[in-house]
Amino acid sequence: MRALPEGRVLTDPDVVDSYARDRTFVEPGKPLGVVLAASRDDVVATLRWASEHRVPVVPRGAGTGLAGASTAGDGSVVLSLHRMTAIKELSPADEIAVVEPGVITADLDRAAREHGLMYAPDPSSYEISTIGGNLATNAGGLRCVKYGVTRDSALGLEVVLADGRILQTGRRTMKGVTGYDLTGLFVGSEGTLGVITSATVRLRRAPAVPPATFAAEFGSLRDAGAAVAAIMAAGCQPSLMELLDRATLEAIDDWRNIGLEPGTNAMLIGQSDAADGQVVAERMERLCVDNGASFVAVSSSPQETEELIGVRRMAYDAKERLGACLVEDVCVPRSVLPDMITAIEAAAARHDVKICTVAHAGDGNLHPVFIFERGLPEPPANVWAAADDVFTHALELGGTLTGEHGVGVLKRRWLALESGPVAQEVQQGIKAVFDPLGILNPGKAI
Amino acid sequence: MRALPEGRVLTDPDVVDSYARDRTFVEPGKPLGVVLAASRDDVVATLRWASEHRVPVVPRGAGTGLAGASTAGDGSVVLSLHRMTAIKELSPADEIAVVEPGVITADLDRAAREHGLMYAPDPSSYEISTIGGNLATNAGGLRCVKYGVTRDSALGLEVVLADGRILQTGRRTMKGVTGYDLTGLFVGSEGTLGVITSATVRLRRAPAVPPATFAAEFGSLRDAGAAVAAIMAAGCQPSLMELLDRATLEAIDDWRNIGLEPGTNAMLIGQSDAADGQVVAERMERLCVDNGASFVAVSSSPQETEELIGVRRMAYDAKERLGACLVEDVCVPRSVLPDMITAIEAAAARHDVKICTVAHAGDGNLHPVFIFERGLPEPPANVWAAADDVFTHALELGGTLTGEHGVGVLKRRWLALESGPVAQEVQQGIKAVFDPLGILNPGKAI
Repeated sequence: MRALPEGRVLTDPDVVDSYARDRTFVEPGKPLGVVLAASRDDVVATLRWASEHRVPVVPRGAGTGLAGASTAGDGSVVLSLHRMTAIKELSPADEIAVVEPGVITADLDRAAREHGLMYAPDPSSYEISTIGGNLATNAGGLRCVKYGVTRDSALGLEVVLADGRILQTGRRTMKGVTGYDLTGLFVGSEGTLGVITSATVRLRRAPAVPPATFAAEFGSLRDAGAAVAAIMAAGCQPSLMELLDRATLEAIDDWRNIGLEPGTNAMLIGQSDAADGQVVAERMERLCVDNGASFVAVSSSPQETEELIGVRRMAYDAKERLGACLVEDVCVPRSVLPDMITAIEAAAARHDVKICTVAHAGDGNLHPVFIFERGLPEPPANVWAAADDVFTHALELGGTLTGEHGVGVLKRRWLALESGPVAQEVQQGIKAVFDPLGILNPGKAI
Repeated sequence: MRALPEGRVLTDPDVVDSYARDRTFVEPGKPLGVVLAASRDDVVATLRWASEHRVPVVPRGAGTGLAGASTAGDGSVVLSLHRMTAIKELSPADEIAVVEPGVITADLDRAAREHGLMYAPDPSSYEISTIGGNLATNAGGLRCVKYGVTRDSALGLEVVLADGRILQTGRRTMKGVTGYDLTGLFVGSEGTLGVITSATVRLRRAPAVPPATFAAEFGSLRDAGAAVAAIMAAGCQPSLMELLDRATLEAIDDWRNIGLEPGTNAMLIGQSDAADGQVVAERMERLCVDNGASFVAVSSSPQETEELIGVRRMAYDAKERLGACLVEDVCVPRSVLPDMITAIEAAAARHDVKICTVAHAGDGNLHPVFIFERGLPEPPANVWAAADDVFTHALELGGTLTGEHGVGVLKRRWLALESGPVAQEVQQGIKAVFDPLGILNPGKAI
């Protein structure tokens, strides 16, 4: 590691431990140290050294992951990219930006908005998570119901491979089919194939007017699910469409008193950022009423919109007040969203676990959050049993284990249920092409 | 090949020859025969036999490719998927379809429209090309300026690998990050990694009203390029935006007499399929006038729209009347579209070659068509020299060799200019994971 400038390597055990964790409860091992990369050269030097000494490297953005992908094991080196924060280029004419991996997602969005553009992917963590981490996990978010996930905004990457070679993937153009799609392969690979040191991403025109928002309360989750189906079928193209269950609403109400009515068992919050957003939001409102909504509010005032969306934003913090959280992330075909919600409720009852669910309903992506006692080293057996029920049911409904958080370490034990042996074998083969020594984030993603 | 039912294998030399060609001038070799696969089992049997006997296999859809990817060499077997035409599922609620690879692209679109949906990718060949071929080349089209390319509509695949094993990739859900993105890897891989036998694709809501269309004539290509930039910067989100140069317009006028004025050196044709399409088309019209357009027509009547778009549709056939065609496909960042057009004109003059250019202008994707004498075995040296100028210039401008047609055999000699040695090496490594014997469409794509 002598190739690294002074001050780049941290070895104080407490500091190292703080860099060895992500936002899950996964207990890390004892890494050798942390490299705070400030440039591509630092990444190259670290990976060359690691290859030479056969030391595992755990790349890391802001550590906001929810699947354990950036938890570091014994004897590894944590390679933190969070200091590489340059927006190297922002071209309004071409609607692209070239950024280093440590750029905070919301910072790029703000920089784009100065030019009437936006960076669309907005995971809930977007004020604290990095573009590099978003790329590594193919992060989703609230807006992706209209604008797609992180992969849909990634045009090209600069990647340092395990042996220190530099790979350029993709392009600066909107379209391109030269060779295999290596950009797409790296997006979502959780640092197991290489370390992203630069990304060319697509920006989009920001909506010209403030979005119009509605919030609707339902007596049953099924009614709310039917409203979602009706809204999507009517071609409303919401830019956001979030569903909250009773358990989540209670957690929020206990904390912030939102005046939750006894008969309210689901809330649907939607938005349109179209030029005629107010009209679209009113159409969505009517479809909610047609499907049994008891109370509906619509607004295109930025302040009221903030209040309506604010309820959704409180969801995670409200749950964290209840105990330790296992945050899950199944995704199902939209038509079976109500069935999946029923299955989650059944799993909660069967295994006596408190589960609060929010869903990116327009995408069929549900986040059941399993609450358990704080201070335990990991979730107790009944939580895992309930999670197992949820995963199995999601797959039976034609869904997937993870819509946007990734596999990390937490979902590996269910991987074989979704990916057959042939898919697992070819993924191991691809891994070996990029990382023959197996030093890059071993034990994650595949 | 005894595992194949009777009638599946063709060996008549004339018939075999017709299956060994695509839409390019590339002269094929003499394949051993053609397999007309009717099922996944036929594909498995063919690939097992080919692996056992080390026989190259050239997968094929409708043979409409423009880069030579489905031209077959000596001693190979052509594996035609065009008889696998089942739309196995079409779910309006989930907005997906599951199709066999031989389904004609426009047929899927029509089937979707019966449910108020559409299949968005629309390469110019979409009335004759297949979904399988579109996936293999990651085909683009006119609508992709708004709806993305084929990859953006591919959710999951069933693929038969070289050794006959069956690989399932992706999912039925809108989002999902379980494991590496194998679906994206197969899309655009030109049959070199496996043979797609089923695809789960995303459908979208069809616009509720007929699109509104404008056509504008300009005295210079630069003015037309400036109009494109202004339209995109204004956030008009055209659903189609095509640019035709003077040479193309002359070819069309000579054939069909469209009343081409002497001062018209470019035509821009655009469309909006938004709910307020007429308003948007009028805004685009004004931006054309602001940028020097001499004549502009706007209409949302289906018949007039057909007439305006019809000019664009005639472009390729009009050029084919002039001689043999080398159809190229560079893509550049949108801001340098005028520079690229200037470079194409300079290359035409320098090497005394007739080049007619149309562009999917909203994407920066240009199709310069190099006209040469019919009956030649391949383009003469001055055509290749002009093409070389065009490719080199596209790359210098931050562009790519191919926006949507693929590399095939025609663009392989320029590949190293765009993809560095590291990218080429890892692509060969990936190829070896899927096809260790190298029997799948050898000599193509990478």
